[in-house]
Amino acid sequence: MTELEFRSDIPVKFLDRMGTDKTIAAAARVLEPEAYHAYLDDGGNDKDVNGIINYMTKHRHGTPFEHGALSCFVRAPIFVWREWHRHRVGWSYNEESGRYKVLEPVFYLPPADRPMMKVDNWKAARPKFTKCEDREVYNTLCQNLMKSYRITYEAYEQNLALSVDPGIARACLPVGIYSRCWITCNPRSLMHFLSLRTFEPEAKFISYPLYEIEVAARAVETIFAKGWPITYRAFCDNGRVAP
Amino acid sequence: MTELEFRSDIPVKFLDRMGTDKTIAAAARVLEPEAYHAYLDDGGNDKDVNGIINYMTKHRHGTPFEHGALSCFVRAPIFVWREWHRHRVGWSYNEESGRYKVLEPVFYLPPADRPMMKVDNWKAARPKFTKCEDREVYNTLCQNLMKSYRITYEAYEQNLALSVDPGIARACLPVGIYSRCWITCNPRSLMHFLSLRTFEPEAKFISYPLYEIEVAARAVETIFAKGWPITYRAFCDNGRVAP
Amino acid sequence: MTELEFRSDIPVKFLDRMGTDKTIAAAARVLEPEAYHAYLDDGGNDKDVNGIINYMTKHRHGTPFEHGALSCFVRAPIFVWREWHRHRVGWSYNEESGRYKVLEPVFYLPPADRPMMKVDNWKAARPKFTKCEDREVYNTLCQNLMKSYRITYEAYEQNLALSVDPGIARACLPVGIYSRCWITCNPRSLMHFLSLRTFEPEAKFISYPLYEIEVAARAVETIFAKGWPITYRAFCDNGRVAP
Amino acid sequence: MTELEFRSDIPVKFLDRMGTDKTIAAAARVLEPEAYHAYLDDGGNDKDVNGIINYMTKHRHGTPFEHGALSCFVRAPIFVWREWHRHRVGWSYNEESGRYKVLEPVFYLPPADRPMMKVDNWKAARPKFTKCEDREVYNTLCQNLMKSYRITYEAYEQNLALSVDPGIARACLPVGIYSRCWITCNPRSLMHFLSLRTFEPEAKFISYPLYEIEVAARAVETIFAKGWPITYRAFCDNGRVAP
Repeated sequence: MTELEFRSDIPVKFLDRMGTDKTIAAAARVLEPEAYHAYLDDGGNDKDVNGIINYMTKHRHGTPFEHGALSCFVRAPIFVWREWHRHRVGWSYNEESGRYKVLEPVFYLPPADRPMMKVDNWKAARPKFTKCEDREVYNTLCQNLMKSYRITYEAYEQNLALSVDPGIARACLPVGIYSRCWITCNPRSLMHFLSLRTFEPEAKFISYPLYEIEVAARAVETIFAKGWPITYRAFCDNGRVAP
Repeated sequence: MTELEFRSDIPVKFLDRMGTDKTIAAAARVLEPEAYHAYLDDGGNDKDVNGIINYMTKHRHGTPFEHGALSCFVRAPIFVWREWHRHRVGWSYNEESGRYKVLEPVFYLPPADRPMMKVDNWKAARPKFTKCEDREVYNTLCQNLMKSYRITYEAYEQNLALSVDPGIARACLPVGIYSRCWITCNPRSLMHFLSLRTFEPEAKFISYPLYEIEVAARAVETIFAKGWPITYRAFCDNGRVAP
Repeated sequence: MTELEFRSDIPVKFLDRMGTDKTIAAAARVLEPEAYHAYLDDGGNDKDVNGIINYMTKHRHGTPFEHGALSCFVRAPIFVWREWHRHRVGWSYNEESGRYKVLEPVFYLPPADRPMMKVDNWKAARPKFTKCEDREVYNTLCQNLMKSYRITYEAYEQNLALSVDPGIARACLPVGIYSRCWITCNPRSLMHFLSLRTFEPEAKFISYPLYEIEVAARAVETIFAKGWPITYRAFCDNGRVAP
Repeated sequence: MTELEFRSDIPVKFLDRMGTDKTIAAAARVLEPEAYHAYLDDGGNDKDVNGIINYMTKHRHGTPFEHGALSCFVRAPIFVWREWHRHRVGWSYNEESGRYKVLEPVFYLPPADRPMMKVDNWKAARPKFTKCEDREVYNTLCQNLMKSYRITYEAYEQNLALSVDPGIARACLPVGIYSRCWITCNPRSLMHFLSLRTFEPEAKFISYPLYEIEVAARAVETIFAKGWPITYRAFCDNGRVAP
């Protein structure tokens, strides 16, 4: 019998990048290529770059932030992809397909410290959860998930063994199964994603994302902050609304 | 114990519409509102409408086909939504969310006559299937699916009873569960969807879609053909490539 | 010699619409078609509609606002279209083309009360203007424009008389010439346009649009407010940021 | 008096790029980062890359072609930008603005060998032109354009001298004036642009673009062909329809 792998992380790995903060500032100025390269080489224009980027963020001049690109490789449970793929503009995806290949038996279990217990005054539109203090509750949840994963993956393998279309054989697989995906976005579309998929009490518009997509979003945020530190700071300083 | 519902259809129901073939022809001509209304009232301009629409389709002048809208209500298994949501441009979605409500126990079973048996010379990129002649194989497939559906839905209900976040409680639910969604598109984005999600040997670019999304696409196609018959005919006559 | 027409307005005329506030609330609830129609017929659910729409606006759940459509006919100078066409997502355009038809001699003159005189402490990124009190200045500006319009239109007609490609004959025409266009958008993309093309000191992000595009935007805003009054109010109450 | 510059070229200069053909093939395979880098380093997999890219082009699996980016700097007359900016999806623009800076007196004149004389059986929807054999006609056209450029730029400078809003001062400037712009796209959106803005008698859908935008498109095509030679060949071999 195939052994299942359980994991609780959502790995986001850097693949490729185009542009930096200076590219954004240069695009805003519509610099000629020669001037652009001089601008890149000039170590003393950080204040200028900072000024432009902050101004544009504050007044939502968004287009300069599209001259850049970031590609990452992500493994996440299907229920995370279901939310992620709803981001349409400035986002490109290539996910592995259950129609063409056998999906691997890798499944998601929530970490023990994930806020997950409904708070009493819970209201539908604004979910709020606390950590699970009752170990038995957590164990039961994980047992239920693992049992489901085991039985459905077994059914999946039996379906494949019948030589039926993998596209229907996989109908029994749960949304907790992991799937690999290449994602490509630009700084602007990325900031829009971050604004909706992270919780920040200080944001101008507060979002209440699913825990798992926020974990992924925070990983992308770290990669973004490293590649475009001035843009990232401007985003945070201006209420985390994408310009 | 909660009783499960199994179904094999993918109902697509008309909600709302804006525009007709004449709207598209009028947009191409950039008619003034008064002229537009006269154009709508004129029963004798079918030949003109036909000529414009065919010309634009043939030479891929696509923008006039965006002046129109169609909203439908669709119930489909999650594995169908996973494909549908990949259509980003000119497509809007509002799907029920497992984070805020209890998902109903309605699950998909393939109809007996669905082409599903791998053909010998099957190649990964171009799946080809024949109908299942062996009743036992079909029954085993359905048994595997139904058992998976039953056990996972039970686990789901047990998770909910623990008062944990529905967003994690549902991780065990299979992609064969139905989900409701409002979709809105325009004639151009709809034709692009049809070109990729239907199989037509005569098309200029042949697609090999998943059976279930083609079932849904054909239902949308029928609604589209009724609302925009001239556009629809031009689409078919020009190799089923969206203008 | 062809007589020129000068005008200072930017007419925006309603063409077609799909949906109302209730459609948006129903989409957010993913109502079945029957329930949707009952919802539309129910005169007593304004409070419910109001609650949903406000909640979604406040927390930027934007997708329900895409289930709707608005088409308008607009005549505006080319320099306005140049800005308008930069709105890409959820916006469709069909503009008359100088390649295929003779453009009419209709040109824009600023109204006398347009804020247009540079204020002393003018800074590039944040243009601020006051009305022109010096009638002579205003007259000179208009004379300069009218003279340019007259001479270039004459040159245009001479070019056409040479039987050259209208696509090059029109290269002399100024951006102050009017052009007709069909526009189609949805409530969400419309609100994004309004947020960037109107000046509101109370907005969460203040924009400083060109006078002429704000005139056009305000006309669209009026049509929008009439068709989707609850959505419009929620947009204004939440800082005029599109959900 | 300010001297005007006349030119007949449309310079397109490379700025930045992300990805190659191998990136597209790797995205289609959803390779892990380590495998991706090994794939990049492997000099012997051209046949594999070729096979994947051709298959995807033939069957219009378009998304892998979005994992890449190309930025260029372009100087073109405004009437070219008016067409270019209509490409919305996967295209980003930052153009210099007449609201914030003084536009330079650089204007477009058609080259003498531009096909520009209307052919007798000319039909509105399908413009066809031959070269101008009558030198006098060409000279008259250029004189008309140059005179218009001269007088309007003078009026523009006079308007600016009045200290009025540059946003209205420029209303007299013709669409033949040059404007600088940064453009960013991806291989997929670029191929869509090429399919509509170049004339190829062998294409599956023949387009009849404006001469000047085709000149620009051909320059971008050359840059594209160099950066993604396999993709480019597949595009041409499959009828020049974007996958």
